[in-house]
Amino acid sequence: MEQIVIISGSQANALAQKVASQLGIPHYPSTIRYFPDGELYLRLPTDVKGKKIILFESFARRPNDALVETVFLSETLHDKGAGEVILVAPYLPYLRQDSEFNPGEIVSAKMFSTMLSKAGIDALVTVDPHLHRFKDLSELFKMKTLKVSAMPLLAEYFYNYHQEALVVAPDEEAEQWAKLFSGKVNAPYIVLEKHRFGDTEVEVSGSIPKGTTAVIVDDIISTGGTIVEAAEKLKEHGFTSIHVCVTHALLVQDAEAKIFQAGVKSLIATDTVINPYMRVSVAKIIGEALERLMSHVGNRA
Amino acid sequence: MEQIVIISGSQANALAQKVASQLGIPHYPSTIRYFPDGELYLRLPTDVKGKKIILFESFARRPNDALVETVFLSETLHDKGAGEVILVAPYLPYLRQDSEFNPGEIVSAKMFSTMLSKAGIDALVTVDPHLHRFKDLSELFKMKTLKVSAMPLLAEYFYNYHQEALVVAPDEEAEQWAKLFSGKVNAPYIVLEKHRFGDTEVEVSGSIPKGTTAVIVDDIISTGGTIVEAAEKLKEHGFTSIHVCVTHALLVQDAEAKIFQAGVKSLIATDTVINPYMRVSVAKIIGEALERLMSHVGNRA
Amino acid sequence: MEQIVIISGSQANALAQKVASQLGIPHYPSTIRYFPDGELYLRLPTDVKGKKIILFESFARRPNDALVETVFLSETLHDKGAGEVILVAPYLPYLRQDSEFNPGEIVSAKMFSTMLSKAGIDALVTVDPHLHRFKDLSELFKMKTLKVSAMPLLAEYFYNYHQEALVVAPDEEAEQWAKLFSGKVNAPYIVLEKHRFGDTEVEVSGSIPKGTTAVIVDDIISTGGTIVEAAEKLKEHGFTSIHVCVTHALLVQDAEAKIFQAGVKSLIATDTVINPYMRVSVAKIIGEALERLMSHVGNRA
Amino acid sequence: MEQIVIISGSQANALAQKVASQLGIPHYPSTIRYFPDGELYLRLPTDVKGKKIILFESFARRPNDALVETVFLSETLHDKGAGEVILVAPYLPYLRQDSEFNPGEIVSAKMFSTMLSKAGIDALVTVDPHLHRFKDLSELFKMKTLKVSAMPLLAEYFYNYHQEALVVAPDEEAEQWAKLFSGKVNAPYIVLEKHRFGDTEVEVSGSIPKGTTAVIVDDIISTGGTIVEAAEKLKEHGFTSIHVCVTHALLVQDAEAKIFQAGVKSLIATDTVINPYMRVSVAKIIGEALERLMSHVGNRA
Repeated sequence: MEQIVIISGSQANALAQKVASQLGIPHYPSTIRYFPDGELYLRLPTDVKGKKIILFESFARRPNDALVETVFLSETLHDKGAGEVILVAPYLPYLRQDSEFNPGEIVSAKMFSTMLSKAGIDALVTVDPHLHRFKDLSELFKMKTLKVSAMPLLAEYFYNYHQEALVVAPDEEAEQWAKLFSGKVNAPYIVLEKHRFGDTEVEVSGSIPKGTTAVIVDDIISTGGTIVEAAEKLKEHGFTSIHVCVTHALLVQDAEAKIFQAGVKSLIATDTVINPYMRVSVAKIIGEALERLMSHVGNRA
Repeated sequence: MEQIVIISGSQANALAQKVASQLGIPHYPSTIRYFPDGELYLRLPTDVKGKKIILFESFARRPNDALVETVFLSETLHDKGAGEVILVAPYLPYLRQDSEFNPGEIVSAKMFSTMLSKAGIDALVTVDPHLHRFKDLSELFKMKTLKVSAMPLLAEYFYNYHQEALVVAPDEEAEQWAKLFSGKVNAPYIVLEKHRFGDTEVEVSGSIPKGTTAVIVDDIISTGGTIVEAAEKLKEHGFTSIHVCVTHALLVQDAEAKIFQAGVKSLIATDTVINPYMRVSVAKIIGEALERLMSHVGNRA
Repeated sequence: MEQIVIISGSQANALAQKVASQLGIPHYPSTIRYFPDGELYLRLPTDVKGKKIILFESFARRPNDALVETVFLSETLHDKGAGEVILVAPYLPYLRQDSEFNPGEIVSAKMFSTMLSKAGIDALVTVDPHLHRFKDLSELFKMKTLKVSAMPLLAEYFYNYHQEALVVAPDEEAEQWAKLFSGKVNAPYIVLEKHRFGDTEVEVSGSIPKGTTAVIVDDIISTGGTIVEAAEKLKEHGFTSIHVCVTHALLVQDAEAKIFQAGVKSLIATDTVINPYMRVSVAKIIGEALERLMSHVGNRA
Repeated sequence: MEQIVIISGSQANALAQKVASQLGIPHYPSTIRYFPDGELYLRLPTDVKGKKIILFESFARRPNDALVETVFLSETLHDKGAGEVILVAPYLPYLRQDSEFNPGEIVSAKMFSTMLSKAGIDALVTVDPHLHRFKDLSELFKMKTLKVSAMPLLAEYFYNYHQEALVVAPDEEAEQWAKLFSGKVNAPYIVLEKHRFGDTEVEVSGSIPKGTTAVIVDDIISTGGTIVEAAEKLKEHGFTSIHVCVTHALLVQDAEAKIFQAGVKSLIATDTVINPYMRVSVAKIIGEALERLMSHVGNRA
């Protein structure tokens, strides 16, 4: 029978280790170093001939380095006779540029997808991808894809502490997350409308019921602007206990300061991205997705 | 009475928030952004006139940026009439260059200390500083200093899972940490001897009793060489369940891969540095240190 | 008699070497490396006891690293018995944040100046500093300062190729540079008015005479917005041969693309910042400034 | 007839502009920016349908970012109906890892080549590629390749100043460059033998004639170790005027300091990499190569 092993790239070792231990399959972190001139040194940690490979890679911090790591690894795995290569990318980058908004703009989401396909990635597992114009991963990626959501896990964690919170989608794109989150406990949710002015300015509207406790739910926090506008809107309406649940806490530049300065009391995130607010691990749902994916593959064979 | 507030720099917000909530004092993250040309933008988050300031700053990732942030913040706090400025640096950088090993070398540990003094830092709280030639922080820093150790917390966490482990100091410098760690449960410890060859090569010797489970204890993991050599020595002697407990998990370059490839089963670290192996928070011991420091100051006045 | 030597930090070696050879004094590049964890390794290249030191440092690329380098070097020079330390900073960073525009903002220009003073810098030589609210370096820096202008050199170079160009200051802050530039050849100049909207948007007005060739003159190009607006205004008025002369070509992000897409035909810069458009060296004027500074010091003694 | 345009990526605009002006074809710098989370924004500067594209890209500073830029650009050019895409990479990265030295190591040179092929690069022009185990670019790259050498240009420049210099290849791999360099003026050359110890230590042997002036010739300077050992060997043999000519001056970490501290009097480099020692432009030889390549293509058709 075909052997399955997990190989992890930089920044994804800890999550890979948890999933490996859950599934009872071997895990090998690959050796990844950078030379002083910025070139990558990569070494496969085990013999891969004839094995099915689950490759964990984090795209959260330096997406281009992670992308080159992934391509070099995948190409070499196939050169060395590995079987199927399943990429687990807990956070998928480059999804926000999903259209040619201005003439000549490169649709990075498509380019990213093309690079993974050409590098021989046979299947892709991810968590809460930021899909907007593309409604499903299958519209964007040619390989088999499987997405799982951390929203039920975040909801479960959150409702241990705050039973009465109003669930808030900070903009229309986030409605899908609020629905999944509130669905876990059959709570209602509201959706705010975001209006962008320029690159960084954001304003928010929408009707808001009375209350004191609210939880803003989203897939990503990058610079934090969307969360801040929602939090300020909620404060204006008398909310005094505002919380944030998010899958991917990128938290670039002064995002943390802005969010807490806006009166957010707590920030709860997963471990798809290494960040100081990791309260919930996605290891369990990624492990389950891999089991589904592999049994499905088995059935097909 | 003098009001006390906590202000945090980038990367230290989460820890500052925990300590603030524990001590019941207000916490304000400061706004810190970088312009595309690398210049820093900083804004104080609250009026500081006449207040005592506890400034949290993480020096783990880009120590020079953190150092300039700290100096700019401390100078401005004093300009604006703040009282005493207490710096909480969970991880103290630049301690390894503590002597002029070759003529003309700059003793960075002293330079770092001088910069903090000149910037008006009145007191310094840190966790498990890497002291070697300087035996005590007071030999190096002119301001009041207070160090706390995460070793008892790490031991407490670790012994929940592994009661019978041999405690191992991977080199003589680490004996102090093994002593503090094993002291928590009255266990014995052993000390390996490290011999350096060049910048990166390390070899290890020392007498090792029989056993199966061991825990290597150290203050810092940077590139991981010391841990790897100790783990391989332990494997040679028949140990099959090797773990690592460390306060500051810097984990640069391929440290994680090297450590796990060397057969380490688990890595347990604190939150002095944001890393994927944070199992133990130093918030409690930093909070206690601040209480001691402030009551002492009060007594003195 | 006191010996004078030039010591250079990273990125300033080439310029320091030219000045040293011009003045006939020895030049020693200092050893500067970064460890993988971001810490700095520094080693003085020569014995400095009793010598007067001219320290070259480039602050253009990573200003905080350069600032820490400078402080570590200056402190150690004094510890080791050096005499006066003269800092040559061809490009002075942090001058744009010269006021507390919003409450709590840190006036980085002052902080930068304070750090240099406290580190024992005795005199400062620079080229075309970006002074706006501070009218003179002496308002900002406590040590002796000397500024020189690259504008006559740029003008001299430019007028070899384009005798009939209209000199254009792209905004009021740049009038000083247009005056120095055009003064070299007794040409007239015009000043455009810049109106900022938000962080990045810029609009330009001002009356523009007829012509075909123009040269936009400024001290710094960072993201290039100011130059682009001026170039587009000139194109609207029928100019077809538009050039740019600038002292400090930082050229961050897509500045080059924006400038050339706006129709600029050529960009001419100095070597205060390492960049692909270095046509004019400031070595000569820095050398002359150092001679003035040292003869003055000699006279005073 | 098919129109030809030059498009340049970041860091290659200045060289592209020179070549464009030499060949009399249009040049458009493409818009390339980085978001704070590290994602790339790219916009094509002109309509490319039906045009032949010469794409300039510099791989010298952050090779993985440049590689992703190149792939995104090339894929999009083809999507938008461009004809042949010729990549001009003045410096080719990743050539040093040209074999699996240790089991599992990724042969980056091959991976780099594969990525360019799959992205649709139809031809490649480069300067002095670092070929060692692969003897010719055609062994490594599937597309049409054309290499040119900057050695005759460097020799021409150098011999204006130093007619009597001994040409020195600092190791056997550099013999090819010394041959090309000295061939320009029919001078003899010698080859030193380099022995590596570990990652950074280097020693040099070889018989050296008497003399005072020498020029060390190589394709790349990265950390500078090879040059330093050669310079010290030459000093031991009484040489007092030692110079260095190099095509690609990467000059990472403390390379400059090491080289000048070893007594090198001058460093002369080309503009394949933006660096402070650019004395010779490769624009002319790249322009000629492009003309050959395009006439050849024409003939073939």
